Amino acid sequence: MNTVEKWGLFEVSLKGPSAGNPFTEQSVSATFRSKNEIVTVDGFYDGDGVYKVRFMPSFTGDYVYETVGSFPEAESAGDFTVTEPTGNNHGPVRIANTYHFAYEDTTPYYSVGTTCYAWAHQPEEVHKQTLEELDKGYFNKMRFCVFPKHYIHNFRDPETFPYEGTPVDNSNLTEENFSYFVDFSGNNWDFTRFNPEHFRRMERCIVELQERGIEADIIVMHPYDRWGFSVMNREQDDLYWNYVIARFSAYRNVWWSLANEYDLMRAKKLEDWEHYADLLCKKDPYNHMRSIHNCIPFYDHTRPWITHCSLQRQDLYRHVEYTTDYRTRYQKPIVWDEIAYEGNIDMGWGNISGQELTRRFWEASMRGGYAGHGETFMNPEDILWWSHGGKLHGESPARIRFLHEILTQTPGLGLKQGPGAFDETVAVPDEMIPVTGYEIHYYGFGRPSFRDFVKPADENWRVEVIDTWNMTITDAGVHSGKFRIALPGREYMAVRLTRV
Amino acid sequence: MNTVEKWGLFEVSLKGPSAGNPFTEQSVSATFRSKNEIVTVDGFYDGDGVYKVRFMPSFTGDYVYETVGSFPEAESAGDFTVTEPTGNNHGPVRIANTYHFAYEDTTPYYSVGTTCYAWAHQPEEVHKQTLEELDKGYFNKMRFCVFPKHYIHNFRDPETFPYEGTPVDNSNLTEENFSYFVDFSGNNWDFTRFNPEHFRRMERCIVELQERGIEADIIVMHPYDRWGFSVMNREQDDLYWNYVIARFSAYRNVWWSLANEYDLMRAKKLEDWEHYADLLCKKDPYNHMRSIHNCIPFYDHTRPWITHCSLQRQDLYRHVEYTTDYRTRYQKPIVWDEIAYEGNIDMGWGNISGQELTRRFWEASMRGGYAGHGETFMNPEDILWWSHGGKLHGESPARIRFLHEILTQTPGLGLKQGPGAFDETVAVPDEMIPVTGYEIHYYGFGRPSFRDFVKPADENWRVEVIDTWNMTITDAGVHSGKFRIALPGREYMAVRLTRV
Repeated sequence: MNTVEKWGLFEVSLKGPSAGNPFTEQSVSATFRSKNEIVTVDGFYDGDGVYKVRFMPSFTGDYVYETVGSFPEAESAGDFTVTEPTGNNHGPVRIANTYHFAYEDTTPYYSVGTTCYAWAHQPEEVHKQTLEELDKGYFNKMRFCVFPKHYIHNFRDPETFPYEGTPVDNSNLTEENFSYFVDFSGNNWDFTRFNPEHFRRMERCIVELQERGIEADIIVMHPYDRWGFSVMNREQDDLYWNYVIARFSAYRNVWWSLANEYDLMRAKKLEDWEHYADLLCKKDPYNHMRSIHNCIPFYDHTRPWITHCSLQRQDLYRHVEYTTDYRTRYQKPIVWDEIAYEGNIDMGWGNISGQELTRRFWEASMRGGYAGHGETFMNPEDILWWSHGGKLHGESPARIRFLHEILTQTPGLGLKQGPGAFDETVAVPDEMIPVTGYEIHYYGFGRPSFRDFVKPADENWRVEVIDTWNMTITDAGVHSGKFRIALPGREYMAVRLTRV
Repeated sequence: MNTVEKWGLFEVSLKGPSAGNPFTEQSVSATFRSKNEIVTVDGFYDGDGVYKVRFMPSFTGDYVYETVGSFPEAESAGDFTVTEPTGNNHGPVRIANTYHFAYEDTTPYYSVGTTCYAWAHQPEEVHKQTLEELDKGYFNKMRFCVFPKHYIHNFRDPETFPYEGTPVDNSNLTEENFSYFVDFSGNNWDFTRFNPEHFRRMERCIVELQERGIEADIIVMHPYDRWGFSVMNREQDDLYWNYVIARFSAYRNVWWSLANEYDLMRAKKLEDWEHYADLLCKKDPYNHMRSIHNCIPFYDHTRPWITHCSLQRQDLYRHVEYTTDYRTRYQKPIVWDEIAYEGNIDMGWGNISGQELTRRFWEASMRGGYAGHGETFMNPEDILWWSHGGKLHGESPARIRFLHEILTQTPGLGLKQGPGAFDETVAVPDEMIPVTGYEIHYYGFGRPSFRDFVKPADENWRVEVIDTWNMTITDAGVHSGKFRIALPGREYMAVRLTRV
């Protein structure tokens, strides 16, 4: 008897024709049934006469399935048993309490993301280094692209291309002559024939992240392109979206980011994005997270298909500080996927200090939002975490992990900004009326030498001083009434109060 | 023959009655004439049967004067000669080119201010220390109050009081029981009888600042009060305003700040402020600078009597970054008199780092605004520069002096924000079309390792790398066309380009 874990991936593999163009001329689908669900999904052609259909069961117990398709061998049937999840398998991430996330098994998920746009397209050595860094548990979400990236620091060809064909010559590309306006001639692609190897590389990455408890925030489209993947026509785009959905949906840790910087994709219009969203809602039976990320103008995050706001800072100086405003406006989780990266490249989106990036994480998190990391240090190998992965050089990852530890101690599903003085950000449990007796007062770049607190005389509050940079939590005793807490007069301090 | 420098202070002293209440029952005034001006000003009673009339001549050459008054000895006449100014006497500061300042002799004045609210009321030892710090040339404007200050860290009685009478007992005041809501009973003042010694202390301070090339930004009213000076009636206020104007106007370095945090003076209404402004415009013949400083809501700085905007930050995160917006809105110089102080007290307005305060100065200055310093470090003597003066402990003053040196190198009268990338603040000369060939690119908390510039191929630009924190200016050569300037990948760097 076949078995698979609940929220695991069950795959049916079928032999079929390899003649002609199986990607466009053949089709296969399957229906999976148990007493709790009936799910029909499309399969896909994986090359070499092999067709596959994938399924993620949401219930334990016995399942049967039937496959059908355009070729005789597509008709098949079978059964399997779904067992209890094990290890770090908590199911896909869902929205919880409007502004937060939880795994489907109700375990809270506090997002601390990172970005390695093109890590799936790097040589094995870099890939291995990336995994070693991810093993350290700094992050639990990663944003990365299906298509390769053309941009400064990104002129090398990817290890694989998504289509059959040959790419434009890259030998004359330099940082100096980089332009956003690209002539796509010189490429020779068959947009009707995918390169399955490319997608298998993506899937390997998804699984590697899954094994490490990291959500795969997959960027399906993006503008940083010299190959023409960003200017395909509607028919080509639909073929691509269907292929991606058929291949990736059954991985429980998949999130869909329709685009990175959608507003820079000049060939796409609002109706295109709504069309892809519609397709995704129809074809992904698991309702994975869906978002669309801006460069400058936000997409209208009130659209019902958008599960959470994937935001880029709008201003050099103030951005995550708007978290509470955007929660109110959009009534969805606020995820700051791009708030500048720790590094020292020339551009302002990639040269802030580890202190400043950590501060931005805290400012976002204390307001009941979530933030994303990236790293862009100049180095002789020109391997920058933000795009390639590789080795981390910065100081923020360990601090982000420390923040995550504190977030996991939240009573309930998440935080929100509570009342406070003008010079502090106060986080309280995100309940209608917080009754839990839990507050974190964060002082950011302020350097108070002490703070006074007032609590009812008949309540006891445990006080801890948190050094968010030096990653220490110091017991400051149990207090009632009016009391003063000494602080070191340094930046990046917080005080946590818990009623006992 | 009497002589006085142009913009110096000429004083006529008259003996008169000391019986009754000379402050309210007697009056004296004088008219000063030369071929270029005729100025009539009120005099004042200075105690001990002595009346004085003060005058600041605006022209060289021969003057005559006549005094008149309510008592027989008030009638007198005389003459004097006004000589050319010497030393650092450039005359009073005036508005220049809408957004900037220049002394009356047209020497540009680039304001770098500081605040020692109550320095005029401190013991001699502290006063001496303050002067020693001011001798170092960090600042060219100081904000300070006529009335003593009641506030945390400010419970000691001042050395002198402005009125005859006795103050409320201060022996039970502590930081813990400090309240903004004060019971003024317990004071016993005669608001019709000034204490001339108090005002002579003020004048000594004005002169000490003048000798050091520092403008005296005198705060005439303020809310931090336990004596009732902030809640006098209209008649008492008018007596006070007239006395202050008669005594201080003839000092060339006087600026009038109608109030600090006018909006916290609950006893005063809009019509009161407009009334004081009207009185000031009528009675100060020299048209010294006039402003009014907010806590939260700005006063309407478009009012014609306001010469420049004296602003306090409105937001913890973004404030001086609005300089260009406020220039546009108010069409007046933008002076950020309160943008938080370097220090480590508990409150957010007094615990930022020297780096952050210096950054705020640069952000304001590069946009064609001006900023003010203050310092609030906890210390065993409880002497904080922000209020008492004394010794400076911070790192920003030397950096502010360095910024001022750079500002004095501006071609023309001032800077404004020019076009630039999203991650830099570019300062250019404040001309309709800057033709001077002068740019400062400031990178704030960004840490670029290099920046690319493009200039016409037929122009030569001298490039200097400015480390605003380490206070160095490094020659980076002369360049044309497209060129790259290496930077250290540290915060607080700037690049200056000058066409040669």
